[in-house]
Amino acid sequence: MYDMTIRLQLNSEKCLYEQIYEHIRHEIWEGRLLAGERLPSTRSLAEYLQVARSTVDYAYDQLLSEGYIEAQPCRGYFVCPIEELLQLKSGEKDVPERETICVTCESAAPRYDFSPHGIDMSGFPFSVWKRITKNILNDGNRELFSRGEPQGDGDLRLTISRYLHSSRGVNCSPEQIIVGAGNDYLLMLLEKILGRHVGIAMENPTYMRTWRIFNSFAYRVMTVPMDESGMMVNELERSGARVAYVMPSHQFPVGTVMPIGRRTELLRWADGAKDRYLIEDDYDSEFRYRGKPIPSLQASDEHGKVIYIGTFSKAIAPAIRVSYMVLPKTLLEVYRRDCYFYSCTVSRIDQRVLNEFIRDGYFERHLNKMRKIYRAKHDLLLQELVPFEKHFAVSGEHAGLHLLLTARGDCTEGELLESASAMGVKIYGMSQHCVEAVGGRATVLLGFGAMDESDIREGVGILKEAWL
Amino acid sequence: MYDMTIRLQLNSEKCLYEQIYEHIRHEIWEGRLLAGERLPSTRSLAEYLQVARSTVDYAYDQLLSEGYIEAQPCRGYFVCPIEELLQLKSGEKDVPERETICVTCESAAPRYDFSPHGIDMSGFPFSVWKRITKNILNDGNRELFSRGEPQGDGDLRLTISRYLHSSRGVNCSPEQIIVGAGNDYLLMLLEKILGRHVGIAMENPTYMRTWRIFNSFAYRVMTVPMDESGMMVNELERSGARVAYVMPSHQFPVGTVMPIGRRTELLRWADGAKDRYLIEDDYDSEFRYRGKPIPSLQASDEHGKVIYIGTFSKAIAPAIRVSYMVLPKTLLEVYRRDCYFYSCTVSRIDQRVLNEFIRDGYFERHLNKMRKIYRAKHDLLLQELVPFEKHFAVSGEHAGLHLLLTARGDCTEGELLESASAMGVKIYGMSQHCVEAVGGRATVLLGFGAMDESDIREGVGILKEAWL
Repeated sequence: MYDMTIRLQLNSEKCLYEQIYEHIRHEIWEGRLLAGERLPSTRSLAEYLQVARSTVDYAYDQLLSEGYIEAQPCRGYFVCPIEELLQLKSGEKDVPERETICVTCESAAPRYDFSPHGIDMSGFPFSVWKRITKNILNDGNRELFSRGEPQGDGDLRLTISRYLHSSRGVNCSPEQIIVGAGNDYLLMLLEKILGRHVGIAMENPTYMRTWRIFNSFAYRVMTVPMDESGMMVNELERSGARVAYVMPSHQFPVGTVMPIGRRTELLRWADGAKDRYLIEDDYDSEFRYRGKPIPSLQASDEHGKVIYIGTFSKAIAPAIRVSYMVLPKTLLEVYRRDCYFYSCTVSRIDQRVLNEFIRDGYFERHLNKMRKIYRAKHDLLLQELVPFEKHFAVSGEHAGLHLLLTARGDCTEGELLESASAMGVKIYGMSQHCVEAVGGRATVLLGFGAMDESDIREGVGILKEAWL
Repeated sequence: MYDMTIRLQLNSEKCLYEQIYEHIRHEIWEGRLLAGERLPSTRSLAEYLQVARSTVDYAYDQLLSEGYIEAQPCRGYFVCPIEELLQLKSGEKDVPERETICVTCESAAPRYDFSPHGIDMSGFPFSVWKRITKNILNDGNRELFSRGEPQGDGDLRLTISRYLHSSRGVNCSPEQIIVGAGNDYLLMLLEKILGRHVGIAMENPTYMRTWRIFNSFAYRVMTVPMDESGMMVNELERSGARVAYVMPSHQFPVGTVMPIGRRTELLRWADGAKDRYLIEDDYDSEFRYRGKPIPSLQASDEHGKVIYIGTFSKAIAPAIRVSYMVLPKTLLEVYRRDCYFYSCTVSRIDQRVLNEFIRDGYFERHLNKMRKIYRAKHDLLLQELVPFEKHFAVSGEHAGLHLLLTARGDCTEGELLESASAMGVKIYGMSQHCVEAVGGRATVLLGFGAMDESDIREGVGILKEAWL
């Protein structure tokens, strides 16, 4: 077996898992790890490198999902045949054959996967979506193939503004809405609007995809500690950031719902200087199972300080590449001055389908249905976790698509992940969502969105055997 | 009438038309120009400001297309009712009603519009597109609603790589292709790949949309003069740029097809330093009417120096928000290291429809059909312009969707535009595409893509009356 000597830098800006991931990827690119070669098991590599097994797991996951390696059941991880990369390197220039394409390898899926990003696709109203699409693709709609408005079609923006007002208390006119193909794109656009060299504060732990995106900008990204109410405003003040990114309805991954007091403090912080702003990512606000719905932070914003971002990827389907951003008036002016030439990234057909889906009440019905489905899963998981309460604290409940378990004892996150994984259950460590290590007890995430009820029962049953 | 005193800065980085556009927009925003107020005529404002009438025309066009003003036939230009903006300003927070939406006002369309950006939508294979979409939206394809690969679906990338190889001589594997929602988005992604503070050279005149986009980046954008073969390489060398943006198949707006000698010089320039690259925008290479097709610059690239960008917006329909970028291996490595987390911006359904459209031969058939349609229009326009030859030189022929007329006498571009406009014919001035004024005779663009044959005949007939 290939001798995997990786020089890990503990003081590097890169997490350990990223260093491992990059090292292996580099070795594959350079041809030092060849197609078909077996990688060390995660356990033995973790032991060899003296890191948590979850760290190696996460690095392997990344390599799996990008198609560099594949998992063979009961055999281990193997380097994929990626002829193209080598072909590319050798400078040969033939048209590639179908066979040489590196399709994303199927990972050896665990029997029970509690991914916090999984969503339930069985509820997707496929036939309604199909019918609306068919109706729209009638000859009368040829104008849909011509260029549309840069901010997105006016009808869709009106529909979104009404939906946001009624369901989230968001105050905006359609003029303030920008429709784009996914949050990533909208953040890229926001970079142009906010300008360069912005100091941006994020919570720790946070949503790592957004963290990576901000880091790819000419931004100074800093983390600000949280307490049980969310981002600590005195620490935010101290950080010198001029923009803060928060998820007040349901912080990912911790699950905090920010109380009104902290919201007011944040808004007051933003009012403290002309160019301070809050980015409110309201990514899964649709799913709340107890109590009254909590309005958005934007709803309390009196002085145009909140940039509100939401998406239909979570509530409808990940492939619906439609997100929206609500700009306060000052930034709308900047957008119109500096960014008016960027074309809308969503096709007009998709915009029209989505508009009719929302306008004709299907979205609301779909949300009600999904809320019911997710509530049942949430309640079941919560109930199944009751026997754990002696050894674990449960948190993050009543909203979103995952729960958290925090060990009361001294076991490590790696031990929890490892003992579950050994029995075919994949759970997720809090450390994957941490920019910097946070102290305290081991915490893991149990997502239930994509799992059916019997899998939740069986999966938790196995965890009980493994951990209790 | 409102007294339109605009302080134009001749030494500003902004063109005169932009300054006029921004001034008026600002006045509307500030409420100093109220809804329903009449703007001065383009002629009188141009006289007052001592600028070409085309400059004011272009500023008004921009305001029209963004819905700030509207044109009323035989009456002039009026400020649109944009309650929202005012509502927004006044801080009121009601849910907007449909009536307050500022829809893009219909501009008083000229009788004959020779827009160089117009395309012929009558040839769009609507029924095929509809059939493919319907077939794909069958229940068997539920996986299309889950998240796809960041670079775009593998099947589509394979199809594009084969198409590019056979039609444009492009040498690439599907691994090198990134699919994105439009060129604007791909350029934003390229900014992340090339890094900040890049010095980028463009021709003058050039495609102004791209020029604006590069200017919105942390880039140093510079112009390099052209001769009859295209960008002058000694001037490029002198500019200190490390990236050059060129359109070798058909320079916009001049129409130059770059000869092989100049291509070789450019490639040699790029070989001169490790981090030099050429961006080849092959935006309308599909439409060539005489002689052999000319392979792309990328086809001659031996050392991975060309970033190739193309789009389906021109060849199929503007609303098909699918473009593609072919990265050389070195940049692919950077992309995979620094940008792998950006999700693909095109929905998987759209990707699948496009893939089948190309794979099953419909795209080729569509291109052949459109080439025939455009060739007929091109030949007709060329023939109708024969009587102009004593007073104008015709250029830019045999490719693309527009021709150029350059006056042999001393008339100005503004005079040409104005006399045509007075008779209901809209033509386009070269100065709109110039970053800096270029000397020489007045030149105008006549696009024929969206015009039918009788309109071409009648429009040119009017120009004959106006100009000869």
